Amino acid sequence: MRLTVFGSLALDTTRTPFRTEEEIMGGAATYAALASSMFVETEILGVIGSDFPENYLSLLRSRVGTAGLVIKSGQKTFRYDSSFNYDLSQRTSNKTELNVIAEYEPSVPDQHKDSPYVYLANNDPIQNMKMLKQFTNPKLVVCDTIEFWIQTKPDAVKKMFEMVHGVVINDQEARMLCGMSNLIKCAKEILSWGPEFVIVKKGEHGSILVRSDMIFVAPAYPLEEILDPTGAGDSFAGGFMGHLASVDNTDMKEFKSAVVYGNVMGSFAVEDFGLTRLLNIGNKDIIHRYHLFRKLTQL
Amino acid sequence: MRLTVFGSLALDTTRTPFRTEEEIMGGAATYAALASSMFVETEILGVIGSDFPENYLSLLRSRVGTAGLVIKSGQKTFRYDSSFNYDLSQRTSNKTELNVIAEYEPSVPDQHKDSPYVYLANNDPIQNMKMLKQFTNPKLVVCDTIEFWIQTKPDAVKKMFEMVHGVVINDQEARMLCGMSNLIKCAKEILSWGPEFVIVKKGEHGSILVRSDMIFVAPAYPLEEILDPTGAGDSFAGGFMGHLASVDNTDMKEFKSAVVYGNVMGSFAVEDFGLTRLLNIGNKDIIHRYHLFRKLTQL
Repeated sequence: MRLTVFGSLALDTTRTPFRTEEEIMGGAATYAALASSMFVETEILGVIGSDFPENYLSLLRSRVGTAGLVIKSGQKTFRYDSSFNYDLSQRTSNKTELNVIAEYEPSVPDQHKDSPYVYLANNDPIQNMKMLKQFTNPKLVVCDTIEFWIQTKPDAVKKMFEMVHGVVINDQEARMLCGMSNLIKCAKEILSWGPEFVIVKKGEHGSILVRSDMIFVAPAYPLEEILDPTGAGDSFAGGFMGHLASVDNTDMKEFKSAVVYGNVMGSFAVEDFGLTRLLNIGNKDIIHRYHLFRKLTQL
Repeated sequence: MRLTVFGSLALDTTRTPFRTEEEIMGGAATYAALASSMFVETEILGVIGSDFPENYLSLLRSRVGTAGLVIKSGQKTFRYDSSFNYDLSQRTSNKTELNVIAEYEPSVPDQHKDSPYVYLANNDPIQNMKMLKQFTNPKLVVCDTIEFWIQTKPDAVKKMFEMVHGVVINDQEARMLCGMSNLIKCAKEILSWGPEFVIVKKGEHGSILVRSDMIFVAPAYPLEEILDPTGAGDSFAGGFMGHLASVDNTDMKEFKSAVVYGNVMGSFAVEDFGLTRLLNIGNKDIIHRYHLFRKLTQL
């Protein structure tokens, strides 16, 4: 099966108490697509400027399909600058430069319009909906969103949720969107708007999958060293979608496994700066950590 | 097998945004012993004043052994007054009146000195150690502690940890005691002081058991309604110790089950004010929720 991922590609500047990295490859779609590419053939859709470093581009091209990746000549790539506090639990946005993303007109290349699995990584919900309408008949569409869109375009966020099968969202954003603190209630509220399932990501506390017929609660893989939390949620989504697309099956058992594969990919992502760790693991590492997770959580 | 629980019995005044209850039965030992009594024959050791309401006392006597419960004539029971914020995530202590607890001289009745299972609920670590020395040869001793003792008697807390097999502690207190934010690292630091295992309680995010030979991560049972978080951690300890004492076996499998029974008892405790819910469940409810937990977490 094939998975198509749409969303931002970025040059990130990430500041932690231990280290600062400037203009490294990042973006929600980048993390999700590189994570899912370890499970299934993945296409990335998005836009970058001609300043996107050649070595990053060739790295992307070596792992995912880039027929739908638009390079705007003479323009600048989306940039995101953020800082983490002493224990990496709080992130502060320092600067967001949309650049090429601001005027991007979503377009799915003809050969990918029949993609059976589609992941709409965090992005303008209106752009996401425009993109989604171009797919012919996807089996499974999942989207994410963040605080910025919840605050600026809450109606479009809800409309986008109506159009997808599943929503992946973090705990604080779920609370903000639903105006409630209990996460199970938030998930059920979101379900009432249309999607068939909601996954609430709780960072170091794992994730909760809520479908009308089941709830599955998976703790995070317990890590002793976290270097950079950037991209954990996007890598989660990549592992989740990647597993479902690779088995081409969305029954209860595979759904649960997909959540665990999501947690596994999120746990790798935070072990080093940017994409470093994700790019240095192989299938054996993923399977090994999946089995460790079983040992850590199964009675 | 028998379990002996030592610690505070209290009259709690609990203020939540929905309701305030004044001078209801509470205390760490009360919650732990009433929870464990649903698994195993339990003795409670502690002290109350002659103002402890007769109906509370008879309720206690109907469920647990009270040969080691001292009633100080003419004195007042320990009182604790606290408030919770709008979503019950933060607690503020309004007033703590130690009363009879301040001058209590720990004493184990002769017939309970051979108790094989001992739980030292949150209490002055020096009193806990005095009590512990009176037991002849317990198979399993577990203790808890809180912020107050970590701040006022940190050396005694560490000394107490050296003397027990296991420590149950909440996340914030583990971080405070160890001066580190990563909970796995905190647990390993505590292990290095002597105990064989540490359980870090994370409230609505479940708990982590760390032994030198294993880690077990159990999410909390997902609840939609929480009325009063008071006593959740103590009820966890009661369920955990109660299960281990009832099966009289501390192998890896029973340890994991005990953590889940702990989570189950904690989840019941918070569903109503004070001890109300814990006192209104039966074995069937416990087993039912244990099996639901399996469904919610097992692949």
